[in-house]
This record gives sequence, C-alpha cells and structure tokens, in this order.
Amino acid sequence: MEALVIHAAGDLRVERIETPPLEPNQLQVRVRAGGICGSDLHYFQHGGFGTVRIKEPMVLGHEVAGSIEEVGSAVQGFAVGERIAISPSRPCGLCRYCQQGLHNHCLDMRYYGSAMRMPHVQGAFRQRIVCDTHQAHKLADHVSDGEGSMAEPLSVALHAVNRAGPLLGKRVLVTGCGPIGALIVIAARRAGALQIVVTDMAAAPLRSALKVGADQVINVAETPDALAAFTADKGHFDVLFEASGNQRALVSAFDALRPRGIVMQVGLGGEMTLPINTIVAKEFDVRGAFRFHAEFAVAVELLNKKLVDVKPLISATLPYRDAGKAFALAADRSQAMKVLLSFE
Amino acid sequence: MEALVIHAAGDLRVERIETPPLEPNQLQVRVRAGGICGSDLHYFQHGGFGTVRIKEPMVLGHEVAGSIEEVGSAVQGFAVGERIAISPSRPCGLCRYCQQGLHNHCLDMRYYGSAMRMPHVQGAFRQRIVCDTHQAHKLADHVSDGEGSMAEPLSVALHAVNRAGPLLGKRVLVTGCGPIGALIVIAARRAGALQIVVTDMAAAPLRSALKVGADQVINVAETPDALAAFTADKGHFDVLFEASGNQRALVSAFDALRPRGIVMQVGLGGEMTLPINTIVAKEFDVRGAFRFHAEFAVAVELLNKKLVDVKPLISATLPYRDAGKAFALAADRSQAMKVLLSFE
Amino acid sequence: MEALVIHAAGDLRVERIETPPLEPNQLQVRVRAGGICGSDLHYFQHGGFGTVRIKEPMVLGHEVAGSIEEVGSAVQGFAVGERIAISPSRPCGLCRYCQQGLHNHCLDMRYYGSAMRMPHVQGAFRQRIVCDTHQAHKLADHVSDGEGSMAEPLSVALHAVNRAGPLLGKRVLVTGCGPIGALIVIAARRAGALQIVVTDMAAAPLRSALKVGADQVINVAETPDALAAFTADKGHFDVLFEASGNQRALVSAFDALRPRGIVMQVGLGGEMTLPINTIVAKEFDVRGAFRFHAEFAVAVELLNKKLVDVKPLISATLPYRDAGKAFALAADRSQAMKVLLSFE
Amino acid sequence: MEALVIHAAGDLRVERIETPPLEPNQLQVRVRAGGICGSDLHYFQHGGFGTVRIKEPMVLGHEVAGSIEEVGSAVQGFAVGERIAISPSRPCGLCRYCQQGLHNHCLDMRYYGSAMRMPHVQGAFRQRIVCDTHQAHKLADHVSDGEGSMAEPLSVALHAVNRAGPLLGKRVLVTGCGPIGALIVIAARRAGALQIVVTDMAAAPLRSALKVGADQVINVAETPDALAAFTADKGHFDVLFEASGNQRALVSAFDALRPRGIVMQVGLGGEMTLPINTIVAKEFDVRGAFRFHAEFAVAVELLNKKLVDVKPLISATLPYRDAGKAFALAADRSQAMKVLLSFE
Repeated sequence: MEALVIHAAGDLRVERIETPPLEPNQLQVRVRAGGICGSDLHYFQHGGFGTVRIKEPMVLGHEVAGSIEEVGSAVQGFAVGERIAISPSRPCGLCRYCQQGLHNHCLDMRYYGSAMRMPHVQGAFRQRIVCDTHQAHKLADHVSDGEGSMAEPLSVALHAVNRAGPLLGKRVLVTGCGPIGALIVIAARRAGALQIVVTDMAAAPLRSALKVGADQVINVAETPDALAAFTADKGHFDVLFEASGNQRALVSAFDALRPRGIVMQVGLGGEMTLPINTIVAKEFDVRGAFRFHAEFAVAVELLNKKLVDVKPLISATLPYRDAGKAFALAADRSQAMKVLLSFE
Repeated sequence: MEALVIHAAGDLRVERIETPPLEPNQLQVRVRAGGICGSDLHYFQHGGFGTVRIKEPMVLGHEVAGSIEEVGSAVQGFAVGERIAISPSRPCGLCRYCQQGLHNHCLDMRYYGSAMRMPHVQGAFRQRIVCDTHQAHKLADHVSDGEGSMAEPLSVALHAVNRAGPLLGKRVLVTGCGPIGALIVIAARRAGALQIVVTDMAAAPLRSALKVGADQVINVAETPDALAAFTADKGHFDVLFEASGNQRALVSAFDALRPRGIVMQVGLGGEMTLPINTIVAKEFDVRGAFRFHAEFAVAVELLNKKLVDVKPLISATLPYRDAGKAFALAADRSQAMKVLLSFE
Repeated sequence: MEALVIHAAGDLRVERIETPPLEPNQLQVRVRAGGICGSDLHYFQHGGFGTVRIKEPMVLGHEVAGSIEEVGSAVQGFAVGERIAISPSRPCGLCRYCQQGLHNHCLDMRYYGSAMRMPHVQGAFRQRIVCDTHQAHKLADHVSDGEGSMAEPLSVALHAVNRAGPLLGKRVLVTGCGPIGALIVIAARRAGALQIVVTDMAAAPLRSALKVGADQVINVAETPDALAAFTADKGHFDVLFEASGNQRALVSAFDALRPRGIVMQVGLGGEMTLPINTIVAKEFDVRGAFRFHAEFAVAVELLNKKLVDVKPLISATLPYRDAGKAFALAADRSQAMKVLLSFE
Repeated sequence: MEALVIHAAGDLRVERIETPPLEPNQLQVRVRAGGICGSDLHYFQHGGFGTVRIKEPMVLGHEVAGSIEEVGSAVQGFAVGERIAISPSRPCGLCRYCQQGLHNHCLDMRYYGSAMRMPHVQGAFRQRIVCDTHQAHKLADHVSDGEGSMAEPLSVALHAVNRAGPLLGKRVLVTGCGPIGALIVIAARRAGALQIVVTDMAAAPLRSALKVGADQVINVAETPDALAAFTADKGHFDVLFEASGNQRALVSAFDALRPRGIVMQVGLGGEMTLPINTIVAKEFDVRGAFRFHAEFAVAVELLNKKLVDVKPLISATLPYRDAGKAFALAADRSQAMKVLLSFE
C-alpha cells in the first residue's frame, strides 16, 4: 500500500510501505479520509517544532477515518465493513498517569505521526492501518469519512472546553480561529455558552467562526483595540480560549477578562512574556489543555447524534497523491480552514 | 386593579387591590402573562404544602412578564414601554448567605406569592406590580410575554443543571416530566448532554419531552422495568435529575446510575426511604437544588438569543378571570404542561 | 501455617492452610498484626450483612502489617526484612472504572476477606500471605506493626475526608465514633478543620474522640437535643461525617448543618427515611464514601512522617489464637475502640 | 495621637493626626501592634510599586491588632477592653463581585494604607483607629497583640492555600520564603500537606521555614540545580506556591511539577517570560491569589485555637518612633522575617 512519508522539511513522498500483521485484538482498516493538522504542517514546513524534529522517515497523519477490512480473531463487537473514526492516541494504560485517568500524560504514549520519541511513531496517512479496538469508534451512516476524520481535532476542542469547566450561561472569548479555535466555538456553543466572541488577524477564518455559531467576530488586524469595549467593571468575559499561540492575543485579552476568569491556553507558542501582576491581582486561572482522552468517544457520538456540525469547516478534499497541493492549501489561511486528504 | 387572591384551599378570588407607591429605584409594571406553578396549584388544591399553610389572604403567582408603565425618579437604564420578565426573588443582599453569593438561602428572603413567612409575601398574579430594577430583565422583541413568564421555571431548571456540574458529553436521566422536568431536558440539552432519557407515569408529558429534545422516553406505568436496560457494568447514566418528588422514581433509578453518579433532587416529596448502602457503595452524590439566583438573568438571555425554545411547553393561555378553569387545566397532566394566565 | 477461618456465624476456627506459591512480581510476607474491622465482626456475629453471606469457609481480615520474608524473582525495590502495611484492595486495573482512576469501583475487585463474590476472596488473618508489590507500603521504624495495620481504616477515613473537599477552616460534625469516626476526627484535624464536634450514644468512644483531637463531644444518649445549640441562622456546621449508619444520627444533624452543607455518608445502615425536602431546600450535598484507593499510600506516609497518631485508638492486642476473646472485646464499645490480633 | 505618615520614598514621619469621629456601628481601637508588610517597605523604599505611587501623605500599615477603647452606640457583641485583630479590607458589599462573594475583587475597595486610589486610603500605623465591627475579630487571651497583627498576612497565605484546593496528602513546593512564603508553609502544613519543600536564595529565611514545619529547604543560591532531583516521571510536586515574584524561581520549578500540577502565583513581579508550551503540554493550572476575604476570620480562629503558631516568624518588635530602624531591619532578609511595631 501507499503512505505519505516525511523525510525532512519540504520532502514529503508517496511511498510503498508494508501492511503490519493483524493481532488477535486488532482491526485492519481501509483508511478513507485524513485531515491535515497544524503539526503535520509544521513537520512539512519546518521539519518539526521546538525540540521535536524529524530524525528518520515517518508516515504523517493522525486524523483519520475509514472502514474495517478485517477483524482480528479475538475481536468482538466489530464487523467488516463498519465505518470508524480512529483515535491516534495509544497510552500504555499502566503508568502512574494512566492509572489516574490522565492518559494524555502517559509516560509511554505512542501517538500516530509523532517525532517526539525515537523511533518515531508512524502515522495514519496511508491506505491501510492496523489499530486496536479501543481506538475504533463507529460512525453513523450520515457521518461522512471526512467528518469522521475531524473527530480528532474536535476531541482537542472538547478537551479544552472540559478543562474550562461548565460553560452554560458563560461569556466566552476565543482568540485565534484556526481549525481548533473554530471547533472550540462549536464545542462552547454546544456546552451552552451565552455569548461567543472570536478574534483573529484574518477575515476568512472569522467568516468560518460566524458559520459555526460565533455571535461576534473581531478582526484585530483592522480594529486592534476592539476588546476595549469589554473592559468595564474589570472585564466582561468569563472564559478565554487562547487558540492562536500568540502572546499579543493572550495579553490583550486580559483587560476584557473578569476577575477569577479562566484562561484556557490551547495554542502552542514558545515563550511568552506575561504581566504576572494581572494574573495575581485578578486571580486568573491559566490552564493548559493538551490533546484529549475520553473526549474522542464523545466527539464521535456528538457527530453521530447530529449534536454538532463540522461540515462548514471542511474547505477541500484532495487525493493523497496531491499531498503537496493539499499541504500548500492547508497552509493558506485566506483560503482554507481544514483540508482533507482522500485515500480512496 | 384586580388580582388573584387565595383565601383557603379551593377559594381563589378575583379581587381589587391597591397599587403600591413607586419608590425612586423601582418600576411599575403592567403584568401581561403569568404561569401557574406547582406551588400555586398546591395552595389552590390543599391550602399549602408541608408546614407552609395559607393563614391570610395572599395574591398568588411568581412567574410573570409585562411591560414598564412608569419608572421611579432615580431609575436608570429602563424606559416606559420596555417589556420585561420579573424575578420573584428578593433576597436581602446583606445576610451571611447573600454575602457568600448564596442568595437563594437568604435569611430574610421575600419571594412573591409565598406563605412561608407571616405576613405572607404577596404575589404577582395582578394587573400591576411594583418591582425593584434588579428584578427586571428585558425581553427581546421576539420573546412573547408568555415565554417571558417562563424565565422563572427555566431558572429553576438552569439552577439544577448548574448544580449538577458540566453536562457536555454526559448521559442524563430525568425522572418526572412536569414543567420543571421538561425544562431540565431543555437546559441539559443546551448544556451539551449526549443522551437524555425521560421517565414519567403519563404519556402526555413524555410527548412534550420528545418535543423539547429528549432522546428517549419511558412510560414507567406501562414498562416499570425499562430502566433495567441501563444497569450493565454498575450503571449507565452519569447524572439523574429527579423531578417527580416520588420515592419510587428516585430509588428505581439507582441501579441505572453509574458509581460516582450525581443525583440532582429537584422534586419535593416529603420523606423518602432510601437504600443508604447503595449511596455509600456507589458513592453517589445526592444534591438538592432549590430555586435560583444568577440563573434568572441567564434564562432571559437564553430566550433572547433563541438558544432555548420553551414554546412547546405552553399548553394554553387563559384570561385571569377564568382562573378556576386555568387551575383545573394546569392540574390535569393528561392535557396540560404549562398553563398561562393573561392579564391583558 | 495457621489462619482464622470463618465457617458460619459464631464459628471462627484456627486452621492450617497452605501458603500459596510466590509469583515473580510478588512478596511473601510474615503477617505480624491485624486489626478487627466492623465487617469482620459482622461475619462473626451474623454470618454477613445484607445480601453478603458466608457461603464457604473464608479466612477473615483485611487490616494487616508484617515483614517481608521472601521476594519474587522479578521484584525490585523491596528487600527481605522490610516491614510493610498491606493494602487489601486488588482492583483489576483494566476495567472502565479503573481506567478512570476510580479503582474502588472496579468491576472485578478482589478485596481481602470479602464474601461479596463467589468463591469468596480469602483474607489476611494468617501467619503468611503472598501479595503484589503495589499492595506493599513500607513502614518507618517508629511505626509499630499494630499502627501499620491501621493504615487500612485510616485510608477509609482519608477517602471520606477527600470526598468532602477542603476542610481548612471548616466546622465539622462527626456522628458516630467507632474506629472510622475516630479516624475521621484525626484526618479532619490533619486537614485543617477549625472545629470538630463528635456525637455518639456511648461515653467511652467519646473519650477516645477527645484524645485524638475533637474539640467537643456530645453524648446523645444523655443530651439528645444538644445539637439544637448549632441551629441558628439555618445551621452551623459546614460538613457532616455520618459514621454511625444510624438514621436518627443523620436526620437529627440536618438542622445543625448550614445550607450547601456537605453530608459525607460513611456508615452503612440499610434503609433510612430522610426528609427529602430539607435536602432540597437547604441544597445539601449527600455523598457516599466507600473504601479508598490512592489514600492507602498517603495513610502510610502520614504515619511514617508522624503527621497523624493512631496509637490512642488501639485498645488491646491479643494473640490470634484468642480470636474469640478478641472479637468479643472488639464488639464491646464500652471497652474497646480498635482491637488488634498478633500473629507473632 | 501619633501616626506613621509616608510623604515620599524615604520620607516616613511620626506625625500627629486627628482621631476620626465614632459612628454608631463602629469601634474605637487603641492600636497595640502592627506588622511591616512588603508593600509598606515598597512605599518606604521606592514610593510605591508599578503604577501605584504615593501622591499625597498617607498613614502606612494594614496589619494591626489592639484593644477596644470605645464602642459605638449601636454596637452589639463587643465591649471596651476586648482585644481584637483588625481586618484592613473594607469592600463595598454591594457591587457585582461582592454580591458573588468575591469581595477581594470589590469595585470600590478601601484597603488600609493603599495608594491605589486617590485620595489614598489612610492606614493603621497609628495609636488609635476607628473601624467597623465586621473588621474586628476577637483575640484569645493567649494570643499576643503581635501575633494578632499577623492575622492579616496569615489570611493572605490561607487564601492562597484555599485557592490551591485540598492539600491533604499532597506534595508541596514553596519558592520564596519571605513572610508570606513562610506563612504558606504553616498553612499548607495545617491543611495536611504530606511534604513541603522550600527554596530561597538566602539561608536565614530557610531556617525560619524549617522552624515552622518545612520538611526540606533548598538554598538555590548554593545549589541551583537541586530541584532536578524531583523531575523523574514528569515531576514530583502536586502544588507549587510561588511566593518570590521571581521569574527564575517560577520557571525552574516547572520540571519538578507533575502534569496537572497547580501553580499558585502569590508573589508579585511585573512581567515574566514563561515557557507556554510547558504549561500547555503538562496542563498546569496557574492561579493568581490576591489578598483574602473570609480567611481573616479563619486566621484569627486558627490562632485562638492554637492550630497554628506564628511566633517563630516574629523577628523583632520595635517602638513605632523607631520606624526608620524597624523598616531597615524589615528590609534585611538576613536578619529579619517579620518585624513588628509597638504602638504602646
């Protein structure tokens, strides 16, 4: 079968790889659709991020859906032909953090398409993959493969929303409207947020935000001081989801956030210089959110029950053999929100 | 002006009463619509509940909306003609519990149409009422007076949902589908519940539950053991909202509730005999929910922003002069969910 | 070796049993001391409790400490001669609840000396036992075997305190002062409770409560209405630990508990008839607490660091061959708090 | 009477001021002891901090205790001669945040000896002061005036501990051991912390930390890499109290803090450059803690009940007329922890 293998920055190849053997408790899956994530882009554009660098050829991709081609001899509850979304998260289940239910902090995590450990964990942008049954979540008929592949980034958004605590009746600000920011809008709306305001530096992502339920969007490239309208009485918003990884976005939101406000930091962004005295004096609660665990099952069920709709965020679907074009499109925020690859 | 005054069980009269003087910080409101609540029915049918008994004539009613007729001399931010929902809750703001933000436990609460204290607190089923500005919450044009009058019971439901903690992705069981149970369905759906199952002894309320978003309803008069389908692996539901006040409903749900499940007890029901060992061994968390405080503002905003729709629960609207007929209808669960009075 | 085997109510025998084989990851332990628990007493006096009945001979006991006699071939970090407390809790680590960190709700729990499942899980009142390394927690030199055996009931108390949330500066009522109630006094004091009042029907346990840190004790057999002193302004206590399993103790405390008060139900007691309307109107939070998990390690460390002192609760230590006498003493609340067996 | 009035950096004078009139609900208090706080030192050394500057003469001081000299005509529950600690916090009680129980975020706060607003709020370093009854908390006979004056900084420490959530059985790191850091050690120990490690750049404060209950101290000037011993398995500590206001202290602790660890930021320190990716990937929870509210009453009760002992932190007590010497001593960390002024 064929797979998309990254060798170095800019060097992404369609290569033939072997299908691994099927263990008794595993499923062999025909991958149908895969979403290009920001980390895939980073590997492609820069060969990695921070200290995580491509050191050997690695199949990219961790947002995929497909259909079951073969079931292992000991598998129960799955049948050939069933369509599934595949969670790329494979925690050990045994370490200190797994035992506490904090699987996203597993000491021995193997996450698809990640160069964090050596040898790298091979990814899912491939025609066929073998996965464990606990990674497989069945899709309803009305959920397309492409929507199914979005269960993964939706899980990231749900995890951030879960970490923020209850949102029913809360006023929410989202800074940065890439796919994760936009999915947070969807998740926050689903969780009962009363008001959702979204900021970004570009017009196209903000249009997407409005499509998926934002009440108001602010282009901070055009109106950099627009958040000043929310600073009366020490601040308006109850919760900030910072999804840009941009220091300016984070700091500029502080005056619009009420005392005891919650800052969910989702965007990665290296070092940031923050006014610590504001965090102290307003008693903010700055929480990191990283990946997900139980949220993957919830994401699939929300899609299956039509309780969320991610279709407006799918900008385009290209054949995997056009990966170069697809990655270029995914990198262009003026044209694309989420770009999918088809492995048909 | 005229008001609906209860004198004793079964003795509800249309009487002329005086309009109280308008203080500088108050609003005079032309009441338009009022909802009949379970407690109004109890006063009417039984002269009270528990130790709370009608001891002097009392205007009934605490779920009302109307339009501003006159504003006090010191009022800012309100104008004649604006339409508002009126919160019946008037905590002192000064006592130990108010200072902790627990206004629903105020040591000196004056709640419209309540015989809890002597003299009784007169209610809002009247043509005109004078209220404080902090009781007044503006309605959007598209929200009818009748919907506005439902901000109060919706607040009760929102308070119960808030007390239950985050519901995003949770499996919810609601036992008892009177107006509060049905509004909990609406609120739980808005808060992101993944699955909502509703039980009741009657068919009509369950039809309403389906209209407002329940996934499945169970008529326990017909299929008393239907919850047995949810007892595998120590129980299926994460949260139970008990809104019937019925001991059997509460106890029969225990096996379907997972360990660490949350039981929100909303229904009032005197004494109940409970299997304490189950509460201990499954580490349930049985929480009472009583009235509301901050939720009233949220209820009105959810209505204003069309984030909830209470219209399917309005069964009928009758003139206040037909109160007897209206109360009889409100008491008939086979015909009515929420019955409103018009004070036009 | 010898063990204490229960055959039926009243029929507790000293019998010879086999030492099981030692697996590579296990420890063989020479049991030194074992505490008699309320459940041991129930098996002895009544042949079980509720639906849990002795159906085959079972070694009793789950509160033990001893010294390592032999280490399995794959064991690291333990050495012959080291003294340990042994956790009797052996969850599967794999089921839905274990994966969520809720090991005390394990779907396949094997807890020492429990007739809950068939075949029964054999207990630890024996001269030698083989356990897994994760059950073994090293005791500091200054901690006696007897104190070490109390790590188990201390864990139960710590779990109840953890479930109650932070106690720093809180006012605490404990109803029922058996060993668990008394250990809750110790744990609540350690956790920063400002005031601890303890009630019981007997004088001797209350004397123990004072020894371990209670501020005030109330003999409700003598002054049944003494809690009335704590009912002003809707109630005085923030948290109630109900450790008697007695309906009267629970209900009589409701008026002394403030709105939003937390009721930790620890005592088992079959069915109880409760004033549900009080739970609703005062918005109590009634939480069950059952066994423990992470708390066992904490219990041993608190003992090791002298942050708690359980010695005042040890009433007597008898040879295991005098089990009949020891059990009789343990059942006599006027004479004994915790009775230990020596297996030397 | 005489007071200590700051006019500008370095210009602190003993001046005669008027005693204000006594309102019916107030107490006139003979101030006995006052503690010099870090903010007092900042006014004295630098004329303020950040944007807060001395713009007019201001009586310094907000940590005081004394005895009642006269009671207002409407006062109940206080008598002449009673000894009290005085809370310097006077929130409005009416604003949005006071109504939510968040009085430390009051929109109209008047805090003793603060130049945050204009005119400045005059402080309590004076012989006589008039305060409201809700500011007054009675001291037990065994609590000295000096200890009573430490109720205020103890409240700050208790508030930080409360914001950190339950500490029973937790591993705690405290960076920075000035008076607040040392009081956090006391409060964390009282709240049940299992292990408390303290770091500082100086030896003397660390000796104080050991006196009040720290398990281990680290002089990071001598052994800058000592925290590396706590980094295995993604980190050892559950909670970090950052009380130095020093960026290096904060950042260097990150590797020793476990995933989902809580960072309580108490120290003020302008801007800090932080590795945001670590906060995200380890899902830290960075919370500010600012002043206190309900904690003042708890602080006094903990002192009254001998549940905490602050005496080891009192380095010296000097007459108020030697304020210059006292402030110089307070600024010398090698010699002094908390320096008190006597107003006898």
